[in-house]
Amino acid sequence: MTTNNPPPSRPGVPLKTPKGTRDWVGRDALLREHIFQTISGVFRCHGGIPLDTPVFELRDVLTGKYGEDSRLIYNLEDQGGELCSLRYDLTVPFARWLAMHRNVKRIKRYQIAKVYRRDQPAISRGRFREFYQCDFDIAGDYDPMIPDAEILRVIVEVFDALQLDIAIKLNHRQILDGLFAVAGVPEEKIRLVSSAVDKLDKAIWADVKKEMVEEKGLSDEVADRIGEYVRRSGGIREMIQILKSDSELCGNKNVKAGLDDMDLLVTYLEVMGVADKISFDLSLARGLDYYSGPIYEVILTGKNQPSQVGSIAAGGRYDGLVGMYSKHPIPCVGISFGVDRIFTLLDARQNKSSSELTHEADVYIVAAGGKDYDGLLLERMAVARQLWDAGIRSEFAAKVKPKLMQQFNDSECVPLTVILGQDELAAGQVRLKVMRASDQETVQKDRGQLVSREDLVQEVKTLLLAVGPQQE
Amino acid sequence: MTTNNPPPSRPGVPLKTPKGTRDWVGRDALLREHIFQTISGVFRCHGGIPLDTPVFELRDVLTGKYGEDSRLIYNLEDQGGELCSLRYDLTVPFARWLAMHRNVKRIKRYQIAKVYRRDQPAISRGRFREFYQCDFDIAGDYDPMIPDAEILRVIVEVFDALQLDIAIKLNHRQILDGLFAVAGVPEEKIRLVSSAVDKLDKAIWADVKKEMVEEKGLSDEVADRIGEYVRRSGGIREMIQILKSDSELCGNKNVKAGLDDMDLLVTYLEVMGVADKISFDLSLARGLDYYSGPIYEVILTGKNQPSQVGSIAAGGRYDGLVGMYSKHPIPCVGISFGVDRIFTLLDARQNKSSSELTHEADVYIVAAGGKDYDGLLLERMAVARQLWDAGIRSEFAAKVKPKLMQQFNDSECVPLTVILGQDELAAGQVRLKVMRASDQETVQKDRGQLVSREDLVQEVKTLLLAVGPQQE
Repeated sequence: MTTNNPPPSRPGVPLKTPKGTRDWVGRDALLREHIFQTISGVFRCHGGIPLDTPVFELRDVLTGKYGEDSRLIYNLEDQGGELCSLRYDLTVPFARWLAMHRNVKRIKRYQIAKVYRRDQPAISRGRFREFYQCDFDIAGDYDPMIPDAEILRVIVEVFDALQLDIAIKLNHRQILDGLFAVAGVPEEKIRLVSSAVDKLDKAIWADVKKEMVEEKGLSDEVADRIGEYVRRSGGIREMIQILKSDSELCGNKNVKAGLDDMDLLVTYLEVMGVADKISFDLSLARGLDYYSGPIYEVILTGKNQPSQVGSIAAGGRYDGLVGMYSKHPIPCVGISFGVDRIFTLLDARQNKSSSELTHEADVYIVAAGGKDYDGLLLERMAVARQLWDAGIRSEFAAKVKPKLMQQFNDSECVPLTVILGQDELAAGQVRLKVMRASDQETVQKDRGQLVSREDLVQEVKTLLLAVGPQQE
Repeated sequence: MTTNNPPPSRPGVPLKTPKGTRDWVGRDALLREHIFQTISGVFRCHGGIPLDTPVFELRDVLTGKYGEDSRLIYNLEDQGGELCSLRYDLTVPFARWLAMHRNVKRIKRYQIAKVYRRDQPAISRGRFREFYQCDFDIAGDYDPMIPDAEILRVIVEVFDALQLDIAIKLNHRQILDGLFAVAGVPEEKIRLVSSAVDKLDKAIWADVKKEMVEEKGLSDEVADRIGEYVRRSGGIREMIQILKSDSELCGNKNVKAGLDDMDLLVTYLEVMGVADKISFDLSLARGLDYYSGPIYEVILTGKNQPSQVGSIAAGGRYDGLVGMYSKHPIPCVGISFGVDRIFTLLDARQNKSSSELTHEADVYIVAAGGKDYDGLLLERMAVARQLWDAGIRSEFAAKVKPKLMQQFNDSECVPLTVILGQDELAAGQVRLKVMRASDQETVQKDRGQLVSREDLVQEVKTLLLAVGPQQE
């Protein structure tokens, strides 16, 4: 068939996806789908409700939520009408949704969707400009630290389900802010110093101190006092003990309030059986402006894990965010899983098949025949119809007279073939044959078992149970 | 807990989603997920492979693909770097992917994703600016009309699975173009006239004719000749017969090629058992430039269906599109399902629950007790841990000392409660109670059966099998 009015070829169009983005196909897409199903299964186990929001928001909704990182927001062009931007995370859209639905006082919501950041991509480490987040958040006015403990429990359940060894770093925004105040950081510099401290997981103390003194304008002495605190981490109870023994620190009301939270939290975490996965790490700061209570990050542990992946989940309490949109603030706490980084890890663990996956089926319908062979196209279609009617994944060559070897090549990896021949069809029968890639010679000699058309669906189902469907 | 450095409240931020977009939550999101699962199940049954592409493409990739509708494309702001636009459909990204992967000669791919059009939204009719498409396409150099027939079969299977009564309108781009030529339309006006004819499903002939004559500059006579043809429709074989009997029409090589296709196609459709769902409708034109062979649209039939929904799926053959990106063109044929319109239909059919869904679980853990009642929070947590460990969807009130009635209110719609009391716990036991909204009085009198902690998980599983989990 020819094309009418063929459009002019445009050899100048660069054949690529935009910087920092990629396509996902076949096994990759199915593996990612498996990750989504695993994670959302845990969310649902904890009473989670799905939410889906538009990929872009009114620009004003995003303004003033991300501190220094606001420059990474993608804007839509002004084409008349409202000014919009692509979402930067799933937390702000959730807060906007809560502010819009004042009748919802309490919700556990989850969302699995792409977010957008004009960051420097690092594809090999799983860092993209378009990437998925899986978020689970608990909103509502509950007693302190009960939802926080459940979020940390959810984190542990998710990585147990994904069979990844992890550790959780925990800190508290109020303790950190109080600690900065006690060290002598002026109020207006606390967020700046906080984002410098946050780099301690990648940088050494000397470099972070240099940034504080030279860029943020702290005195040498104040920077050193900060350094004494933020280089401490350990078990939660142990760290609470250390901080409580510092009377100057505990005189600060923020530190005191944070320690009260941590006292409750550690008790709940022990009962929920996850305290041993968590360390109290005073260097954890988290860049985002909106955190107000406990904050946490998940890192990989165990052998053979690529250490450069960085944190694979992060979250915390953000009691003030909904109040930025509404006079009716709702306290919230949540976690966001970095699915693309998790994908990179699970993908590296899998044994990869060399062949690219471009079709997939459980049954392939083959035509065979002697010198009068006419391809049996309509007969193959009729058998396909029979199998499709029964919900069985089936394919056949879209050729009028396909060659026999071509059909067997096309059916590579498909566990069963139905072989049609003129004589068998005349007798109301077909041949059903189990294909095993490991033993090509036997397969070629085996002509398959004769099955009547009436019994075909049942026989196929029985054999598929025995040999297993094609792996997804 | 108080927020540090509370951000300034911004009462000026409008609390809404951008024009033509909406949020999806709870039952709505779950119903849509059900539609996705149903449709992708059919796709996989036909050997479909999933593909996911970025939400935006390089702008040049979209340029020149959508005719008049190009003005509806959303552009990203130029923030330095590449110029990008949001995808307008899933077909062009697929063609771009094929052009990038020259080793892939054949693929059946499906994609379920959002697309973006700056169109006038009509929310009540399910027309949005951000909406989902579900696409299934067969790419590859096959014998004529075999994949086309399979696509039409897929359409019928999908709507059977969704239990929606439909009819398919079928036409052929080459027949339409040839027919315009025979009627006397100059070559350069064929696309313009085609888009006028496409309005015949919503407008009467007199208005379409007026547009042709006054806006597109056709003579009265040419317009009338077009009118004689395009107001015809009927069964495929019947219409082929009528067209073949018109010798002037059949003298046109495009018409002849199109009729050869239709001859083959109707035979295959009959064998696949779907010909009776399809009418050959010469008024169907489809606006997009890239179609080159059969084109089709799906409309609802049956009683009580809102007729204003318009087409709920559409597609066709587009052999030239990949060649716009690559010197190695690949013939393609496909179908796109309008999921949001399908959602509107299925949602209207469901009996809606009045209560908004904001949590979901199979078990709710309740604390009860007399005057020494302390809320049993840690005990409730420990039972939740036990149930979560077994993968059972469980919740409890996030309060230290929740009131009994509050707990029963919060557990509305949850089929089972586990009731904790000090004395029972001391004996290693809890109470397990089936909740039935239909019989509140009996429920309140029934104190539940005593179960030991060791047997709890097994008893819960048994009861859930009997009463059924909370409906999703």
